[in-house]
Amino acid sequence: MQIKVLGSAAGGGFPQWNCSCRNCTLVRKGIFPGKVRTQAQIAVSADNRSWFLLGACPDLRAQIEVSPELHPRDGLRQSPIAGVVLSSGDLDHVLGLLLLRELQPLRVYATPSIQRLLREDNSMFAMLNRVSDQALWTDIIPAETFALASSAGDSCGLKCEPLPLSSRYPAYTRRRRAAEFAPCEALLGLIIEDKSGNRFAYMPAVSQVDDGLLQVLESTDLLFFDGTFWQDDELIKIQGSGQTAGEMGHIPISSERGSLHRLAALRRPRKIFIHINNTNPMLDESGAQFSEIQKAGWELAEDGWNIQL
Amino acid sequence: MQIKVLGSAAGGGFPQWNCSCRNCTLVRKGIFPGKVRTQAQIAVSADNRSWFLLGACPDLRAQIEVSPELHPRDGLRQSPIAGVVLSSGDLDHVLGLLLLRELQPLRVYATPSIQRLLREDNSMFAMLNRVSDQALWTDIIPAETFALASSAGDSCGLKCEPLPLSSRYPAYTRRRRAAEFAPCEALLGLIIEDKSGNRFAYMPAVSQVDDGLLQVLESTDLLFFDGTFWQDDELIKIQGSGQTAGEMGHIPISSERGSLHRLAALRRPRKIFIHINNTNPMLDESGAQFSEIQKAGWELAEDGWNIQL
Repeated sequence: MQIKVLGSAAGGGFPQWNCSCRNCTLVRKGIFPGKVRTQAQIAVSADNRSWFLLGACPDLRAQIEVSPELHPRDGLRQSPIAGVVLSSGDLDHVLGLLLLRELQPLRVYATPSIQRLLREDNSMFAMLNRVSDQALWTDIIPAETFALASSAGDSCGLKCEPLPLSSRYPAYTRRRRAAEFAPCEALLGLIIEDKSGNRFAYMPAVSQVDDGLLQVLESTDLLFFDGTFWQDDELIKIQGSGQTAGEMGHIPISSERGSLHRLAALRRPRKIFIHINNTNPMLDESGAQFSEIQKAGWELAEDGWNIQL
Repeated sequence: MQIKVLGSAAGGGFPQWNCSCRNCTLVRKGIFPGKVRTQAQIAVSADNRSWFLLGACPDLRAQIEVSPELHPRDGLRQSPIAGVVLSSGDLDHVLGLLLLRELQPLRVYATPSIQRLLREDNSMFAMLNRVSDQALWTDIIPAETFALASSAGDSCGLKCEPLPLSSRYPAYTRRRRAAEFAPCEALLGLIIEDKSGNRFAYMPAVSQVDDGLLQVLESTDLLFFDGTFWQDDELIKIQGSGQTAGEMGHIPISSERGSLHRLAALRRPRKIFIHINNTNPMLDESGAQFSEIQKAGWELAEDGWNIQL
């Protein structure tokens, strides 16, 4: 299968509009030893014709335009994008759906609770269902593997295993919904597998790593993992206030309980950090943190990467 | 005052992700005799320090990054963007608000009905009010001129006259809301005036031009006007189905009842088409339609234009 990294930054992108941390300032001056990044977005295809998006980020319009694989091919209004798999309701993971609203057929996979969060609590998503042949919403049942198919039902040679990772719904979820939504439907890790058994995991938001998750990750050939924050108190140090990485649902990279240490034993998968926050010091490719992750066998996802698996 | 055109296309931008009309195809081949455009967005400032956005389009993140005036200047988290004036609830006019959600103080002006449409019917907008010092929602009363001010109350030397233009709410508005929302609060034209009396109008969606509107436009120095469609049946001809320009709330440019004819008598303002759909033949600067609007004294707005008034 063909995997395309359309974007690799956390919510807000890099640089972020209202941030003048060291990274953002140096990027705007044109002297940062590292790369700018749009918000995290993966596309995958088994046949190089039908593509599935993992999430739909707010930068999707620009990301599609710089990716010839995703340009329309047949007919006046068409797209190779056959569907979207949603793993959460986070804004940086779902807002792009509203950019795909031009009356285009599209399969959207999401858990029933995330569908209710989007469609019942946010009237804007009605724009995806103005005509009959538009978004086809399809349930994801946590832990049940399903085949990816276009809205016309065409199989495309890929299946998806959705792993419940957390019971945390987005901060915009109304309080009374907490009791109505299923805890296991809040946030998923996605494992995509092709017909030859090649597997990759996409997990841009992971709050903790237990032995069960380690075992699953060891069964993959490629891992895109939560690279949001280097340190647990990274945002607080920079802003003077705010939440820890843990409070935001992200395991930090460094420290004894961080991902670098917790995932050190993985042998099989190629390991790539994605969903990297603008404040993360490892973005600086001349810095100690970038060296450290490289020595530990990790890479930083970059916008535009093509990976054949 | 300083006016910046951050984007000049209609919803979907140019090119549009799922479109392979002649314009979009030639642009992607790199041989189109005209310019690519992000979605319509204006920023204005009287002091070159505090900027106000007219609408908040989905391309705002990229538009801010290519505009040094809008980069943070003081402190680690800051923005020169003091506020946003909403003239409708259309997705291509409001989605960008959700990109400005990083706990940043911001004044948001909107009619009470548009505020209810966004905040009561779309839980995502709660992201703009997670902390006390964030979005300050401020009522627009149709036809009542108001001074633009930051959320801290600092005046910035600009006032805004909001003209009710239509009773049409966005297509995603729930049916039962039709009776609850005030017809005059659906869609506004905005006239911005500085302390020297310089005035410009921003009207990216106008369904018809009557003598009252003509008189108002003649009182301005600069007019950004609805340039969405050249012909009333433009989309139907290209897609084979769909709505007319009129049904979508846009007066076409050509024909006896089109804007070129209806606004031909205007003498005072510099006249600029904005919110140009990807299908509009006038985007082709080698074509007859582009010549025609130039001969009639009109310009096509381009991304990145700076205008001093």
